[in-house]
Amino acid sequence: MTWKRSHHCSELTTENTGEEVILNGWVATRRDLGGVIFIDLRDRYGITQIVFYETDKNLHKKAEQLRTEYVIGIKGVVEKRGEENINDELTTGGIEVRVTDLEIYSEAETTPFEIKEGIPTNEETRLKYRYLDLRRPDIQENMVVRSDFYQSTRAYFHNNEFLEVETPVLMKSTPEGARDYLVPSRVSPGKFFALPQSPQTYKQLLMVSGFDRYFQIVKCFRDEDLRADRQPEFTQIDVEMSFVDEDDIMEMTEGLMQKLLKDTVDEEVTAPFNRMTYKEAMETYGTDKPDTRFGLEFADFSELVKDSEFNIFSSTVEKGGAVLGITVPGQGDMGRGVIDRLTERVQNETGAAGLIYIKLNEDDGVKCSVEKFLKDETVDAMVDEADADMGDLVLILAGASPDVYKQLGQLRLMMGEEYNLIDEDAYEFLWVTDFPLVEYSKEEHRYHALHHPFTAPHPEDLEELDDNPEEVRSRGYDLVLNGYEIGGGSIRIHDRELQTQMFELLGIDKEEAQKRFGFLLEAFRYGAPPHGGIAFGVDRIVMILTGGTSLRDVIAFPKNQKAQSLMDNSPDYVDKEQLDDLHINLKEYAKEEQQEQE
Amino acid sequence: MTWKRSHHCSELTTENTGEEVILNGWVATRRDLGGVIFIDLRDRYGITQIVFYETDKNLHKKAEQLRTEYVIGIKGVVEKRGEENINDELTTGGIEVRVTDLEIYSEAETTPFEIKEGIPTNEETRLKYRYLDLRRPDIQENMVVRSDFYQSTRAYFHNNEFLEVETPVLMKSTPEGARDYLVPSRVSPGKFFALPQSPQTYKQLLMVSGFDRYFQIVKCFRDEDLRADRQPEFTQIDVEMSFVDEDDIMEMTEGLMQKLLKDTVDEEVTAPFNRMTYKEAMETYGTDKPDTRFGLEFADFSELVKDSEFNIFSSTVEKGGAVLGITVPGQGDMGRGVIDRLTERVQNETGAAGLIYIKLNEDDGVKCSVEKFLKDETVDAMVDEADADMGDLVLILAGASPDVYKQLGQLRLMMGEEYNLIDEDAYEFLWVTDFPLVEYSKEEHRYHALHHPFTAPHPEDLEELDDNPEEVRSRGYDLVLNGYEIGGGSIRIHDRELQTQMFELLGIDKEEAQKRFGFLLEAFRYGAPPHGGIAFGVDRIVMILTGGTSLRDVIAFPKNQKAQSLMDNSPDYVDKEQLDDLHINLKEYAKEEQQEQE
Repeated sequence: MTWKRSHHCSELTTENTGEEVILNGWVATRRDLGGVIFIDLRDRYGITQIVFYETDKNLHKKAEQLRTEYVIGIKGVVEKRGEENINDELTTGGIEVRVTDLEIYSEAETTPFEIKEGIPTNEETRLKYRYLDLRRPDIQENMVVRSDFYQSTRAYFHNNEFLEVETPVLMKSTPEGARDYLVPSRVSPGKFFALPQSPQTYKQLLMVSGFDRYFQIVKCFRDEDLRADRQPEFTQIDVEMSFVDEDDIMEMTEGLMQKLLKDTVDEEVTAPFNRMTYKEAMETYGTDKPDTRFGLEFADFSELVKDSEFNIFSSTVEKGGAVLGITVPGQGDMGRGVIDRLTERVQNETGAAGLIYIKLNEDDGVKCSVEKFLKDETVDAMVDEADADMGDLVLILAGASPDVYKQLGQLRLMMGEEYNLIDEDAYEFLWVTDFPLVEYSKEEHRYHALHHPFTAPHPEDLEELDDNPEEVRSRGYDLVLNGYEIGGGSIRIHDRELQTQMFELLGIDKEEAQKRFGFLLEAFRYGAPPHGGIAFGVDRIVMILTGGTSLRDVIAFPKNQKAQSLMDNSPDYVDKEQLDDLHINLKEYAKEEQQEQE
Repeated sequence: MTWKRSHHCSELTTENTGEEVILNGWVATRRDLGGVIFIDLRDRYGITQIVFYETDKNLHKKAEQLRTEYVIGIKGVVEKRGEENINDELTTGGIEVRVTDLEIYSEAETTPFEIKEGIPTNEETRLKYRYLDLRRPDIQENMVVRSDFYQSTRAYFHNNEFLEVETPVLMKSTPEGARDYLVPSRVSPGKFFALPQSPQTYKQLLMVSGFDRYFQIVKCFRDEDLRADRQPEFTQIDVEMSFVDEDDIMEMTEGLMQKLLKDTVDEEVTAPFNRMTYKEAMETYGTDKPDTRFGLEFADFSELVKDSEFNIFSSTVEKGGAVLGITVPGQGDMGRGVIDRLTERVQNETGAAGLIYIKLNEDDGVKCSVEKFLKDETVDAMVDEADADMGDLVLILAGASPDVYKQLGQLRLMMGEEYNLIDEDAYEFLWVTDFPLVEYSKEEHRYHALHHPFTAPHPEDLEELDDNPEEVRSRGYDLVLNGYEIGGGSIRIHDRELQTQMFELLGIDKEEAQKRFGFLLEAFRYGAPPHGGIAFGVDRIVMILTGGTSLRDVIAFPKNQKAQSLMDNSPDYVDKEQLDDLHINLKEYAKEEQQEQE
């Protein structure tokens, strides 16, 4: 017998006093006070206090059986709490429900960890009992935000005449970039499907078909070695538009982000977002995804110090490297010990050779750690270039390019976090544009596409494509939020010749291009519109919006760093008959391992 | 250079006369009339006629290059058409656009088939050039309906406080029912993920977690031998609710269907929908998914004829079979030839042994095909039982149960189609309930769950579970629309003991149950709410709503009946290195086949 609830557990207030109600939920806590049993009843909406008095003997006796996490239904009457018992932190804190009838739907054993926010629990235990971890109110709230996020996204695109189209999950393996997850075919012996790393080719084909505004929230897959913030399956908002240029995609994106922030965390952001070229981002922040919630932009001292007697500076510049600095406000009197520890950390974490500094404080004036090698006017000029004032600290790295930029970029983030320079409540969006089209891989002796092989080259740089491909800018763009890359896209190639040329540049010969992407090249024969698009990482954006630091807190059933689900023990061994059907065998060592384990 | 359109191709009317506009699209048709070039410009919204006059020589010359399916942008001025040229079938039929500037974005070769509705084209060619097939206005319209369908569904659930939660695609293989698609793990040698046949266990775990209203539109996978209306990947609306019984799920479903029909095809349907038990459906229509858009309910003559001298009737009934009939209105004078052909068809398609009939017409009166074996009063009683009137035809089958019911069910559908008894504009919903919990498989010598192993038995039949499991009704329900099963679900077991008992009944021993479903049984230890749910087949519902007969017309990139995508040639062979990474080998015969092909 299931009772239909009249209210959920975050709904009743003093306005309901005297009403007869029915509630369903979990026993969150239970207290016996002088024969009166108080229970906090929990559902996903909140908590309501219910009370069993001794006067009803049978009911009270039944209530005595109740333990934490029992699932129950109750009938009762809403009563005002006494002044002294009002709990202002709960919506329902002004009332309690005097129980008149009780139904126990399900008993519960003692849970392996307490169902509460912020209780420290071993990560493995949490993943194994994920269904209990998902009872924690903070994770439940994340799931609510995530659900709102989906609806907000879809409403936006739907209202802007985008069509939602589903693309296949069982598709063709086109190894490029990350490793594919493969699916053996039973009907076609020896052949395999791949799970999509992105629906890239399909969304371009939809443009060729004439669906000029496409979106989809879609699962994608990458069989990579997992880092802390990667999952083998992830969700992206996938978008493509025809007859557009960069500005159209950006404008559409800005509208989406404004709506998303409004709908999920009630924040207003202004558009258009700032834009910065890749070159500028690297030179100013040492990264292509700068956190622009704080300053500490780079100063370039290379020109100032290239002729100095300090050999580390001059020889670095001579060899084509750079001498760069950032100014940390208010740290001009940093103690020697602190600087030593910082130096060590910088060396360990960034790989920089050493840390040079200029301290500016009232006691010592301007003090440079290598002042005996530098002229006073050089130090003064550096302070000037760094825009440093009395009380500030200038941190300086010298080294080869582009490493030194990246190293200083990391140091900048350390300083931002260490000295609370980051406004944690801010949402700072930034477009990064004009990426190089390709980069050269010394290991593989070939060019790689920085975005992907379908990204259009910048029309102004087209003539460099043959001779100086690394100088060619692409029509790609990334969207950065608070230092996270949350989206990326490009205007695509829609011309068969140019696409063929691009494949050649990337070392994909004609035959291979035909085999892997022939259907796309073929499609371009029959009238392809100019088009472009973008994709956004849902997991990461929701993580930022919920103020979290782990993707696992915004995914209902995540995998661990070995791509395993500890809850249901997947992946797992399967029957030999299943493999026979798929025309495959395990390799001997894998077979032996299975036999040992079973 | 891409021009930003001012309007799409179904937007301009005489109200825009004189406006300067920009349009983008495909050349659908092109006519040269006395030096004036008329082009129907097409985009996914519609068609606009554009005109190039000879007066602008350069422009006209450029326009002469244009061929069908070229992608172009134009600037021009909206002009009223002359009375004689108005096309009332197009929104834009009152105007044309006099072109002042032309940009050719992309040329096009002659397409392998014409881009038009209803042009007969070989199915293989259509699938190979799917991106061109998707240019047909009728398929584009299907995709628009499908997109609206998604938004309508999600709005409904969102407005009813359901949370959308994504469940994993890489999950555990739990072979039961259909074959799993498997995904080899690279990180865990010898182990495999499976793609979900449905997120059944996950949605139940979400209930255990306290998310009391869950929905998701989700891809599912079955590696089955494909029939005409099956695809290896399909989309379902997946729903689960806590603290509910059958009525709650049905009421929620009825609201969804009402909204869906209103939003996509502007139809009103009344709720609650009719309900029928499985037993009644089988006895009345010979199927558990009756098409209730027309009558022809079964009459059961078994009692009337069990003692008749006609041996086929009496011995059939004696052996536990049945003698059943349907009354086809207005066919009482069916000719001998027609009946003979029908008999042959019934024998071939349904496997029935023969067809007996009673014709009622003014010329012959009541005429039974086996009247010499039957007493007149028996025939009269049968006519009476069949509710047949003068002019009607009673068709009769005799045979073993349940085969004869199914055979007559098929015959009923044939008659409905043949004699236009079906109202093609009607949407007839029907709930089928009280299914048997299990059925016995003679081949496997074990019971199978009719829905799935998590479906709760009917509480009234619980005591039969051990001794007469086939007599136990389940708490499952199917939703039928116009004779298609479009959804199915059940109230679930939420008790560990009962679930264990159920696994035992299905021949899944303790160890195996633990290995496959241990995490669910474990979850039930910690407080599981009563819960139930349902899932709907998106592809099939959209097919019905768009009036189609093939799932391929409502799926953007479908597979053929061999589970292949002819467009991108997937599945396909992969590199040996990819298999090495996954710790698998092809079996020898598959390897040889690959070598032969490559």
